[in-house]
Amino acid sequence: MSSHAENTALAAVIGLGSMGFGMARSMKHAGLEVVGYDIMPAAVERFVAEGGRGAATATEAARGADIIVSVVVNAEQTEAILFGPEGIADAIKPGAVFVSSATMDPAVARELSRRAEALGFHYLDAPISGGAAKAASGELTIMASGSKAAFETARPALDAMAAKVYELGDTAGTGAALKMINQLLAGVHIAAACEAISFAAKQGLDLGKVYEVITASAGNSWMFENRVPHVLAGDYTPRSAIEIFVKDLGIVQDMARSERYPVPLAAAALQMYLAAAGAGMGRDDDASLARLYAQLSGAALPGSNSENE
Amino acid sequence: MSSHAENTALAAVIGLGSMGFGMARSMKHAGLEVVGYDIMPAAVERFVAEGGRGAATATEAARGADIIVSVVVNAEQTEAILFGPEGIADAIKPGAVFVSSATMDPAVARELSRRAEALGFHYLDAPISGGAAKAASGELTIMASGSKAAFETARPALDAMAAKVYELGDTAGTGAALKMINQLLAGVHIAAACEAISFAAKQGLDLGKVYEVITASAGNSWMFENRVPHVLAGDYTPRSAIEIFVKDLGIVQDMARSERYPVPLAAAALQMYLAAAGAGMGRDDDASLARLYAQLSGAALPGSNSENE
Repeated sequence: MSSHAENTALAAVIGLGSMGFGMARSMKHAGLEVVGYDIMPAAVERFVAEGGRGAATATEAARGADIIVSVVVNAEQTEAILFGPEGIADAIKPGAVFVSSATMDPAVARELSRRAEALGFHYLDAPISGGAAKAASGELTIMASGSKAAFETARPALDAMAAKVYELGDTAGTGAALKMINQLLAGVHIAAACEAISFAAKQGLDLGKVYEVITASAGNSWMFENRVPHVLAGDYTPRSAIEIFVKDLGIVQDMARSERYPVPLAAAALQMYLAAAGAGMGRDDDASLARLYAQLSGAALPGSNSENE
Repeated sequence: MSSHAENTALAAVIGLGSMGFGMARSMKHAGLEVVGYDIMPAAVERFVAEGGRGAATATEAARGADIIVSVVVNAEQTEAILFGPEGIADAIKPGAVFVSSATMDPAVARELSRRAEALGFHYLDAPISGGAAKAASGELTIMASGSKAAFETARPALDAMAAKVYELGDTAGTGAALKMINQLLAGVHIAAACEAISFAAKQGLDLGKVYEVITASAGNSWMFENRVPHVLAGDYTPRSAIEIFVKDLGIVQDMARSERYPVPLAAAALQMYLAAAGAGMGRDDDASLARLYAQLSGAALPGSNSENE
């Protein structure tokens, strides 16, 4: 197509789930040439059906790319993509950049970056925030850190994917660390919101009124405002699942333990996510913590007399 | 003065601290006739110097008043004002309303209301939110519940003191319950904010940048946004003290224990407020929890090399 000038960057996206698919599409819409790969062939076919290029292996996607955007769940998958038995590290051309979006321990991000630079390509530590809708519209928030060259090479992709890119310094790990601070707060705030709204139910308060008053008061949080409507609707269809915070608060715990830093709030929240997962709600919406509190106390939540008990 | 028409309500304010003084002044500015009392004679003198009427005892203030606004710290003080050895209950004229602003267990509010109605006066359960500045400008938020007659009689005072009055039903205790839900969330969010910002410091992150990113992200809370600047400035002058949440999360614990409702997040937060108070910071700003986390971990916070260590 005419918009693909000769100097257009070639971007590869590894992982075409709900986030990666939207990110790949945002980059294509912005005029980049994009090749996508996923372990699920159906995901690749879906991208091809939308006019994207597909690859049969991660290595095929990465070969010749200027920018490789990795959109997988965790540090283990990220390391496997780069350095596993079918890893792409040897296929990445010198001077290209690997953009890692997974939430992970900053120490792992630093180590992956060190190994990447030793092989002659750049590494951008770039955790993302915002859901699938923002991925599809190119309006993610990215918390990024890495070398000047990593930022410069990744720039066309960052501009296409994000409404806001926080540039947090020239060392991989800083982006990951800030993302973990956000996840600590987000995980605790969801648990607090669920503890509070089910406590209000236990006392027989009008939950709609509670939502109205709290969202206008000092007790408000972004998560209270966003998640409590799921509870009021009795709708636990997963927008973000309990298991996400089992994972992310687990990373917080591991980091904190290794740094000798006490996190009693995050620890209490993690126990509730573990209990919810153990009680069978791991793949349900993270607002399911409210259902857990209700089960533990006899509080009556909306919808709890039907399928949710 | 000419604004004091014959049918102007006479309001008494019991407790002329930073909140009560502002509330008394707001009512006077709105045209009510206001008489103030405080156990500290200097507080009464200050109100008189501003043109208010002073009383030598609570009973003298209450006698003949249409509206008695009680601005004290807790349930015990509220009960003492009404029913203690020098209590005002017998001096309150029939049909007057006692407006109780202290944060307390809803069960206590219900009991105080029952005793008030039995003596022939009304009781409005009316916890307040907003600081001294909003009290002085008549812009508090009030979470109120009580009989129709209690609301009607209190109306001139409510209109004068508050920018927003949530009317939560005709039973005392509902206002108190909703205030406790707010305090549960506020107390947990302050603790989470301090846990997170000191964890960021422990990792060597740029705390100003952390504040910028988090306040624009899903990890934000009203309390993070409001309290973390105290930490960044290294300024623990008490705007609201640690001991306030020792009290309020203590009430949450007592309520929850009695109702067989588990509150692991609020419990973890309370332990941190207790530790901060035990470590000598009880009268300092509640953001002092960040200093506690720093002391427990060796994290370096702004100002922590000077007077705060």
